[in-house]
Amino acid sequence: MSLDPRINDELAAWDRDHLLHPTTHTANHARGDVPGRIVTGGEGVYIEDRDGKRYLDAFAALYCVNAGYGRTEIADAISEQAHKLAFFHSFAGQGNEPAIRLAKMIMDRAPDHMARVYFGLSGSDANETNVKLAWQYNVLRGKPEKRKIISRWRAYHGSGIVSGSMTGLQSYHARFHLPLDGFLHTHSPQYLRRPDADMSEADFVNWLIGDLEAMIEREGPDTICAFIGEPAMGTGGIMPPPESYWGRVQEVLERHDILLIADEVVTGFGRSGQMFGSETYDLKPDFMTIAKGLTSAYAPLSGSIISQRVFDVLMQGTDDFGPLAHGWTYSAHPVSAAAGIATLNLIDDMGLVENARAMGPVFQEALKDAMDGHPNVAEVRGVGLMAAVEFAADPATRDWFAPMTVGPKIAEAMTQRGVIARAMPEANTVGFAPPLCITPDEITIVAQTLRAAADEVLSQ
Amino acid sequence: MSLDPRINDELAAWDRDHLLHPTTHTANHARGDVPGRIVTGGEGVYIEDRDGKRYLDAFAALYCVNAGYGRTEIADAISEQAHKLAFFHSFAGQGNEPAIRLAKMIMDRAPDHMARVYFGLSGSDANETNVKLAWQYNVLRGKPEKRKIISRWRAYHGSGIVSGSMTGLQSYHARFHLPLDGFLHTHSPQYLRRPDADMSEADFVNWLIGDLEAMIEREGPDTICAFIGEPAMGTGGIMPPPESYWGRVQEVLERHDILLIADEVVTGFGRSGQMFGSETYDLKPDFMTIAKGLTSAYAPLSGSIISQRVFDVLMQGTDDFGPLAHGWTYSAHPVSAAAGIATLNLIDDMGLVENARAMGPVFQEALKDAMDGHPNVAEVRGVGLMAAVEFAADPATRDWFAPMTVGPKIAEAMTQRGVIARAMPEANTVGFAPPLCITPDEITIVAQTLRAAADEVLSQ
Repeated sequence: MSLDPRINDELAAWDRDHLLHPTTHTANHARGDVPGRIVTGGEGVYIEDRDGKRYLDAFAALYCVNAGYGRTEIADAISEQAHKLAFFHSFAGQGNEPAIRLAKMIMDRAPDHMARVYFGLSGSDANETNVKLAWQYNVLRGKPEKRKIISRWRAYHGSGIVSGSMTGLQSYHARFHLPLDGFLHTHSPQYLRRPDADMSEADFVNWLIGDLEAMIEREGPDTICAFIGEPAMGTGGIMPPPESYWGRVQEVLERHDILLIADEVVTGFGRSGQMFGSETYDLKPDFMTIAKGLTSAYAPLSGSIISQRVFDVLMQGTDDFGPLAHGWTYSAHPVSAAAGIATLNLIDDMGLVENARAMGPVFQEALKDAMDGHPNVAEVRGVGLMAAVEFAADPATRDWFAPMTVGPKIAEAMTQRGVIARAMPEANTVGFAPPLCITPDEITIVAQTLRAAADEVLSQ
Repeated sequence: MSLDPRINDELAAWDRDHLLHPTTHTANHARGDVPGRIVTGGEGVYIEDRDGKRYLDAFAALYCVNAGYGRTEIADAISEQAHKLAFFHSFAGQGNEPAIRLAKMIMDRAPDHMARVYFGLSGSDANETNVKLAWQYNVLRGKPEKRKIISRWRAYHGSGIVSGSMTGLQSYHARFHLPLDGFLHTHSPQYLRRPDADMSEADFVNWLIGDLEAMIEREGPDTICAFIGEPAMGTGGIMPPPESYWGRVQEVLERHDILLIADEVVTGFGRSGQMFGSETYDLKPDFMTIAKGLTSAYAPLSGSIISQRVFDVLMQGTDDFGPLAHGWTYSAHPVSAAAGIATLNLIDDMGLVENARAMGPVFQEALKDAMDGHPNVAEVRGVGLMAAVEFAADPATRDWFAPMTVGPKIAEAMTQRGVIARAMPEANTVGFAPPLCITPDEITIVAQTLRAAADEVLSQ
């Protein structure tokens, strides 16, 4: 059916006429000015569209299809649970077996000081849950004025009103009245873009920590509830932090009784080369946000993992005031939970965390080799299976291209050559976050395609 | 396996030790002070738990399993899509066939003046989308100060930070710093609880409209963005409004250039006896929030249907400023969309809207008959297949029981007798919202069980 041109035309017309796509140029789409791509299937790191064109997806959709496409094990688990019990709610202590089993599997993998997992549907809603629970934690401790949240510029924590307030990207704020009051942003820890080219990495971290401390002093430590951060930044440009960064940040937070929310939506379940980014960077968070890799996106599922010290206070709160009134209807959805169980088993069975750890350096080397000698490469960076190449007009003099002028063209030229990468916002950075099952041969294809695309775009 | 006591014990322990349930007395649950219920399967209006106990679920989980349990048609569709293409994202105009087809089916059913549907995952996130898009609509029209949202006490619009701010229930606000500034609440249109027993229904509506107008004048019409309301209130107590209410409200909103968001999460797809509550109550909204019935909860899916006049402004906005930066990774999830298609087909094939319309009066009559002569019944009310019985110490003198003293006991006594109903918050109201496939015989069981439970609880 998908090859019948009449149906194809009808589908494309319905798409233009009825569907409001996420983060899309709505007018171009509605007018049909840009071709869409209707994806119909996939296998491993490859997807296929309805015209029979095949792409190597080096961004795993949106860094989420970590186990790869076409995994029958996950689809079978979804099918089995949908036929057995598609849904019953988990309010007031009710439950279902897959959600309980998955909670056990997650807590077995989480750091020892974590106590419980609450299930949501998206990273955005899980971050909102974290803020609500962090607020309530401080209210119950008699510190209701501890309410402000510190995030970072270039952070991505979702596109809701509160999660988008924590996101530190201009395009997610403009014309939406964001950020809301009480959501602050300190600098992003990107050494490449340090304020002064002469700064050493240690100087740069001192500067970052100084800014954070000054913000806390200015606002008043008694007004700050939590600091939220991705262990390694994702959407802001795939930027691993300097080595001493997280240790220094955590020392400041601890001193001021400020909670740490680790947004592991991208880094969780193997992406950084360990099960969690918190292991890779030695974080001890009070909240861990999980989504994407948890189900490899086969069904919507997110989670908030909370620490024992937060849980103890919330638990006492229900003895004092009654039920904790926070709940999505679809929290702990049995079909999504079944997908999560199958995914975590597949991560183990396929050795995906180990493969991410092993392939990370291979990926970086392949990118460096392919881009070797290219005059516009400012940096090749990454950790595990998340990597990026940032371009500049002249890297030596830090003469940057205007934001989003070159990056999107290179990503588009790659797509034309059959490899999907992503132009990251607010710079000219091409990002990669392939399925964690990627092989050295597939990595070579990605790197060589980047070189060909960059040569084409930048020689013009 | 589910009958093996050792596994049962292990499961129950894992549940207590690892899972933070939505809207639950966390301490009681963690200590095992109250028995949980682990649901394993269901068919039609019945669910079954792992101990083999069967319940008639007269609340369709959380008014969501509208097509009933065990519908192979929906499970098969989920399975087929999960095996074909479990996920690809819909950002930047990408797409998948089931999401496009479902968008077409929804817009075929929506009022003619509606233009597009944006897909989310939960009613909470869809309401947040509505607020974001309503804000942007006014910013783009050069009216950024039109930003406040008016909701109603006893409303339920979700439990996020913004959606929970619009919810008008104290338990969802307390200790969470809610509502946020700029989210206002006017009176709920419950005639039973009118301020003065002598008020006619017409007087009561005048009083409600007077309060709404006074609020708008006090705040300044130029600061008000939108009014949000459930066509018939759900979680606040299942309260259909007085007949003239919505016409009067809409006249006020139109006069002050205030958008109307119709939260159809409960009423959508047949619950009120028409496809949408907006038809039942003759609303002309700019946003319609849909979720629950859209997939019968078989997979998480919600939507924001937006009007042509809002869409036109947003579309022009992307020509002026670039992509509309709002998007959940799982927006337009193919597996959820496949569940939606199968559900909408099932609603048609089983005639569920017609059955809701036909069974609504049967349900109300059965409740009235069963409760006939009971001295504590203040009101039997409802529309379509949503109904409630509110109890009072002495209905004649409006001597109410203390909130949540009697209602929860009656609901619990019903559960002991094998019928699940729901004690609605802030009053003593037992609510019903069964699967839309319920039959007259099953309705009789529900009504007689309510009488038996009420007699038991209230004779004590």
